[in-house]
Amino acid sequence: MSEKKKLSIVSFSGDFDKSIAVFTLATGAAAVGYETNIFFTFWGLNTVKLKKGRYPLGKGVLDRTFNVLMGGFRNLPLSRLNFFGASPVLMTHMMKKNNVATLPELVDAAKALNVNFYACEMAMHILGVKKDDLIPEIKEVLGVAKFLENADGGEVLFI
Amino acid sequence: MSEKKKLSIVSFSGDFDKSIAVFTLATGAAAVGYETNIFFTFWGLNTVKLKKGRYPLGKGVLDRTFNVLMGGFRNLPLSRLNFFGASPVLMTHMMKKNNVATLPELVDAAKALNVNFYACEMAMHILGVKKDDLIPEIKEVLGVAKFLENADGGEVLFI
Amino acid sequence: MSEKKKLSIVSFSGDFDKSIAVFTLATGAAAVGYETNIFFTFWGLNTVKLKKGRYPLGKGVLDRTFNVLMGGFRNLPLSRLNFFGASPVLMTHMMKKNNVATLPELVDAAKALNVNFYACEMAMHILGVKKDDLIPEIKEVLGVAKFLENADGGEVLFI
Repeated sequence: MSEKKKLSIVSFSGDFDKSIAVFTLATGAAAVGYETNIFFTFWGLNTVKLKKGRYPLGKGVLDRTFNVLMGGFRNLPLSRLNFFGASPVLMTHMMKKNNVATLPELVDAAKALNVNFYACEMAMHILGVKKDDLIPEIKEVLGVAKFLENADGGEVLFI
Repeated sequence: MSEKKKLSIVSFSGDFDKSIAVFTLATGAAAVGYETNIFFTFWGLNTVKLKKGRYPLGKGVLDRTFNVLMGGFRNLPLSRLNFFGASPVLMTHMMKKNNVATLPELVDAAKALNVNFYACEMAMHILGVKKDDLIPEIKEVLGVAKFLENADGGEVLFI
Repeated sequence: MSEKKKLSIVSFSGDFDKSIAVFTLATGAAAVGYETNIFFTFWGLNTVKLKKGRYPLGKGVLDRTFNVLMGGFRNLPLSRLNFFGASPVLMTHMMKKNNVATLPELVDAAKALNVNFYACEMAMHILGVKKDDLIPEIKEVLGVAKFLENADGGEVLFI
């Protein structure tokens, strides 16, 4: 193909380790010239929400319940192990020790490399999240059809 | 490409939220003209099983054990949070409140939009599930090779 | 396309059932002529580590902690259910009873079918894993860019 290569990732899980996978793949692809899209949906929205206090997302009581359940960016759980909150801290420690970029560093690198951030319209409706609740780097709030259009012709991963 | 666009989803997880993702992506793609395939395997078979009582799938004791572990369509767990069964109920409530299609509505929409439902032969063998245990909309029971053939040339997601 | 068809799988999860999915898809694809790549990362590295005693991976105390958390090949958990370690045993029993290849058989089949095994450089850095800790069938230790290059033009799954 003569077109630019493309990688699109649906970031569904807000798990700490899977979020690292999302941003490692995204920055790795963008660094070698791929057009890279991340579509944040469901728990994945957690990685791109603003930290304006304890319950940054949503307004209603039900929404808040969900958002409390979701936890914050600092508290993303591991997909497999989360003993007393020790594992993400341990993992970050090991990433630093071994000179691997940490999650906030990966997010910053993704911004710098012009990775496109999109947020899922339907998940935002379900969870009562507004665009203002998310980081300004979110380029657009999209539905599935538009996401597929953006992803067309490239690789797509669901993480 | 001049061919029809195609999206194929391996529905592996029977989690409530991931099932919503499967059907949202499938209906969204089908609505904009994609040929759409869902290949139900392992716990994903749960979303397409008939409800004929408490232990609808399988015959043997071991099979039953698995099926009890698998739970029923009404009891699909969330991938991340399932406090006392409250979360799927809460989520369905929020979907209704926010005018988002619920899971049974999404399944119906997928049928209406001619999304192709396939069931995984090997997972059915392991779990002792027969074709008669599944909803009649299952078009065919397939192995991996046939699934790949159907998926060829399109996007493939594992959810 | 006149090129050989290609399937590349990112094996992220070390879960027992997802590992079965990885190797079933890989062997199924390889058997019908696909060039097939598996890129083992994070917990997925567990499925390809050598068993040299109780703590086969890593050297430091932190690394060991992680490796203990990761468990061994014989103890891969199920993604959804793992009651007292019974489920993987039960599942293997059912696989044998129903004449379905078990996980070690699937791994052997993948080797025989020339499925390419790759290990993720970054995850090995984080977890303190060396190439010598992994099975000799690992063809190469790769970063994201090289993995994408290998996967280019084919289907990619994240499991």
